[in-house]
This record gives sequence, C-alpha cells and structure tokens, in this order.
Amino acid sequence: MTTDRRFPVRLDLKNGTVDMSHGSGGRAMAQLIAEVFQKYLNNELLAQGNDQALFMPPAGRLVMSTDGHVISPLFFPGGDIGSLAVHGTVNDVAMAGARPLYLAAGFILEEGFPLCELVRIVESMAHAANAAGVPIVTGDTKVVERGKGDGVFITTTGIGVVPDGIAISGDRARPGDAILVSGSMGDHGVAILSKRENLSFGTEIQSDSAALHDLVAAMIDVAPEIRCLRDPTRGGLATTLNELAHQSGVGMQIREQAIPVRPEVAAACELLGLDPLYVANEGKLVAICPAERAEALLSSMRAHPKGTASAIIGEVVEDELHFVQMETGFGGSRIVDWLAGEQLPRIC
Amino acid sequence: MTTDRRFPVRLDLKNGTVDMSHGSGGRAMAQLIAEVFQKYLNNELLAQGNDQALFMPPAGRLVMSTDGHVISPLFFPGGDIGSLAVHGTVNDVAMAGARPLYLAAGFILEEGFPLCELVRIVESMAHAANAAGVPIVTGDTKVVERGKGDGVFITTTGIGVVPDGIAISGDRARPGDAILVSGSMGDHGVAILSKRENLSFGTEIQSDSAALHDLVAAMIDVAPEIRCLRDPTRGGLATTLNELAHQSGVGMQIREQAIPVRPEVAAACELLGLDPLYVANEGKLVAICPAERAEALLSSMRAHPKGTASAIIGEVVEDELHFVQMETGFGGSRIVDWLAGEQLPRIC
Repeated sequence: MTTDRRFPVRLDLKNGTVDMSHGSGGRAMAQLIAEVFQKYLNNELLAQGNDQALFMPPAGRLVMSTDGHVISPLFFPGGDIGSLAVHGTVNDVAMAGARPLYLAAGFILEEGFPLCELVRIVESMAHAANAAGVPIVTGDTKVVERGKGDGVFITTTGIGVVPDGIAISGDRARPGDAILVSGSMGDHGVAILSKRENLSFGTEIQSDSAALHDLVAAMIDVAPEIRCLRDPTRGGLATTLNELAHQSGVGMQIREQAIPVRPEVAAACELLGLDPLYVANEGKLVAICPAERAEALLSSMRAHPKGTASAIIGEVVEDELHFVQMETGFGGSRIVDWLAGEQLPRIC
Repeated sequence: MTTDRRFPVRLDLKNGTVDMSHGSGGRAMAQLIAEVFQKYLNNELLAQGNDQALFMPPAGRLVMSTDGHVISPLFFPGGDIGSLAVHGTVNDVAMAGARPLYLAAGFILEEGFPLCELVRIVESMAHAANAAGVPIVTGDTKVVERGKGDGVFITTTGIGVVPDGIAISGDRARPGDAILVSGSMGDHGVAILSKRENLSFGTEIQSDSAALHDLVAAMIDVAPEIRCLRDPTRGGLATTLNELAHQSGVGMQIREQAIPVRPEVAAACELLGLDPLYVANEGKLVAICPAERAEALLSSMRAHPKGTASAIIGEVVEDELHFVQMETGFGGSRIVDWLAGEQLPRIC
C-alpha cells in the first residue's frame, strides 16, 4: 500500500466520526477525500484532483439535472442514500431520452456521523455508478455542526447527451397519445415507510431504486417518437401525470385496473392509509407516445428486465382544465388531483 | 398578472414559512417553484419545466464542478449564501480556464425557514447569475424537519467550455514558474467572522465574493500558457499552495511582504488570532505561469477591475518534500504548512 506523506496516521474508518475539520479545506479534508471518496469512487477524471473535472463530451445536445437526497432512514430495503443519489440523477437525465455521461456529488455531513456509515454509503454509490456506467467525476464535502444537519445529505448532478432526432419533453403530450408505466407503483415509498415505522408485512417490501437509462435506450430504439418520459418519484404517479397534463395543456384518462400495484404494496397502503398512486417510485417511469406506437413500445419495455410489468394505463385527452381522470375498479370515475400537503416526508 | 389555476391562493412571501409540503413533490412544491424559483431565476431553459435542462453546448472540452454552500450566517457584508453559491461555482469552473455556461442549484430547506429570506436569497442568486451571464437552468428543492438542517443549504453545479489550446491544471506547476495572486487575502473569512461574532473594526470589512471568469478570460488572452489557477477558498492561500505543490510534485518559495493583505484585515486577524494566509477568499485567485510571462500576466490582471491589487508573490522550486516556504517580513524563513484542524467552520 502506498502511503501519503501528508497523512502519517490513517483515518479510523471503523470507529472514527466526521468532525468539523473534515470540512475545513485543509489537511483533514484532503485525507477524507483521499481515503474515502477517491478510494471508492476511483476513476481517471476524479483523479485529476482539481476542483472541476475536464472531459470531451460527444457531439450533440446535452442535458443537465440536479437532485438533492435527504432521505430518512439512510439505509432501507433495496438500497441506501448512496445508490439512490446515483439512480435518482441518472434517471432524471435519462428522462430526456439522454445517455447519462457523468455525475458530480456534493456531500453535506453532520459532525459526529460515523465514518463506517459514510464508507458504506460511498461504496454503494461507487457500486451503483459502476453498474450504470456513469462515473462520479467531481465532488465537494461540507461539514455542519451536530444538530444542524441529519447524518448526510447528497446532492448529485448529472449530464447526458441526447441522441439526434429525439425530442422528449413534458410539454409534448397530445390528445390520443397512449400513457404507459414501466412497472408496479409505490414500492419505494412503502419500503421506506415500513423501515421508518419498523413495520413488517410478512415479505419484506423492497425499494425499486434502479437506474433506468438502459431501459430508456431500449425504448427509444423501438419508438423514437416517444413524447414524454418522467419518473414518478415524490408525489407518485398521480402528481407526475398532473404535471405532464399541466405542462402539455391536455387532460388524461387512466384506468385504475390497468395500473400495476403489487398485492403486498396495496395491502401495506391500505393499512397505512396511503394511496399507492401518490407514493414515490425510484425505478419506474411514465411514458407517453403516439397511440399507434404504444404496442411496440410496450413490447420493448416488457422485454427489458426493468420493465417486465409494464402496462398501458390510459390515454391523453382534450381537456382545457387539464384534469387527470380515472375510471375506478368499480366502473365509476374520479378526478386524480395533485398531491396536496405532504404524504411521506423525506422519501428521497 | 397571470394567475395559475393550480394555486388559487398565492404564497405569503412576507410572513409565510417553509413547511414540509414544500418538499412533497405535490401542489405546494409546484407553487414554491412557480412563485419563487421560476419567478426570480426566470430564463428560457428553466422555463422548459422538465426535471432537466436541455441545451446545445459549444464544441470543445467541458468542465463540471459542484460546490455545497452551508455558510453561517446566511447574510454577511458583501453578499449572502445566494450570491456566494453562484460565485463559488462560477469560479470553480473558471479555474480550468473555462467559460462558464450554465448552473444547476439544489436547495435543502429547513422547515420553518421564512419565505421572505428565501426570496431575498433567490433574488440575490438571480442577480449574481445575471451579472455573470451564467443562468441557473435547472434545480431541485428538498425540505427537512426543523432541527435537521440550518435554514438553507445550496449546492450549485456548473459546466463550462475550455477554449482550445488551454491546459490549466493543478499538476502543471514547474520549477522556475512564477506565483501570482489577484488581490488581498482574507477578506471573506474576516467579514464572515466579524458578522458572526458581532465584531466591529471601525470600517466594515466586506467579503470579496465575486465571479472571476471575466478576469480569467482576460488573463488567458494575454497568457494562454498559464499552468495553474485555483481560488484560495477554505484553508486560504496557504492550503491552496500546498495543494498545488503536492499535485505538481514541486516546492514553493513565497515572500510574505509581497502578499497583499488589507491593513484592516491584518488588524482583525491579529485581534482574532488568525493567520490571513489561512483565511478564506471568495473573489481571488492564485495563478502559476512560466516566469517569462509573469510580468505580462500581472499587467493584464492589474488592468482588470477584479485584479487591481494583483502581485507576484513567489516562485515554484524543486523540492521532493513539496514544502511551501516563506521568507518572512523579518528576513527569516518558515514552512507554511497545510491548514490543520478547523480555523473557521462554515465559511462557505
């Protein structure tokens, strides 16, 4: 093992904690960066060691997206704040139809946070970033006093390149278009809440946290005419559809029975008084495409491991009030409104 | 004034506070975004209203940099967390010799934070971004419970394009090179500490917080051979020089009497027991260039309004131990080490 003259004593990653000096800009911060961040996130661009990463992007339009992660608890069935911070931003980039290129990560650590938990989180980020093929190329670390933060917050920012000919945006839905989802709704939110409240539902419910850029690439291969893509995170499917309806100036008509919800998630929601349509997902997407391409798109989604439970759940309609209406399981109809208030704080 | 059907009652920006629903992803968050962020940060890309901003970058190498801002107090002489969050990231991008293109901003708000202060901060960000010509094109908002944050944290990420022929990096300093600074050291840290401790030194000491990309552009026009640029923020000039010495595998020899420090900052530092070489700056840079270009570079810096007090403060030397040594005002010599521990917590 090479030793760095600057750090005669290695960080105690087993029993040590974050202290204010780790945010000072000085020797202690340099050591934290070297022995935790650079060690696990190791890649050529990060190793440049500058305050910024330099790279040559492929030609074309770029997208940039940023997402703060303040989830509580930090570790949950199916993931942790580290993997979530990678998946969340990879997905926000991918929802433009883009191929994600690089991530930046800003950490806000609370004094006293155990270094062993930080290592676990950074290892998990590294694993998620490697699996997605999207390296974390630059970062920043700040430390706040005990009681002025909550363990760790991570803000990730991603950039990606949009293939030629692709024009995906929330304002492009048109009456007649089909609305699809890539799988079951509500898994992430219910997994978090179960962990937070220490509830057990027989089988453990796992978060669906996953990077969806490969699913998106498969989708636009088959249906480059996709109009809108969005991941229904905070506020769930209901809020995402309302956003898209508002942005495109249209209405939507969906069928409750067509919306995939796992039985255990439905049961947990009933127990907890939640509506799965408003519960966050972290590995699902909503797609809107011209009706004549819907079946082909659906097939391509179902053929992908992250879209096996995909479904067509409704269609875009004309409605100057931009309502999302749902045909219920009982044959009635109700308006699915924006999430009002706060159903599940700190879900992502 | 146009009204949005979604929000029948406007936010009370005078007496209202942030509540958990503003981070829900639902209607309340949409309203906060519309009536605060989109209103003040108003630009075409942000108005796309997607979870990411789409743009066509100019051809060439790009840089990406991210920086969290957790400063306390939020408002200080010469700026606030909003302007600082813009300047800090614009400068990190510019220190690669790059022209900054776009910023992303992630907010972590504490429940109960006054909306009037948030508006003041966002207005200040908008002003700083407009003045710098670098729009904030995408963002994110999270809310944490009272006591789990500290008012507001802002993580900004920037991208910029590096002109052809420019190769500026912390590992390029070579023995014989000249070391320059663009002005007086320590102003930002002393301004913050004075405000925090409620100290008065006769004349109010202002933070030097400023965007330096225009200064950098003027510098590389005259001296495209610049080897290193870095802004001496946390840890101050001493830590930045040690970073560069380590990264380039060289030593440095500087002259105390050549380092510009305002008399009032020197006096405050003496009173507070601080060494101005370790105090943060937010509108100054360190430049290293071949000796034969130093005078021309110095002239270009002094001719720029943000570099009038620029000075050549020393030279790069061979030293396998990578020490930064300083000839003191008394003719002696001492080693200027890395900042150890934490001198000034939450300075940026």
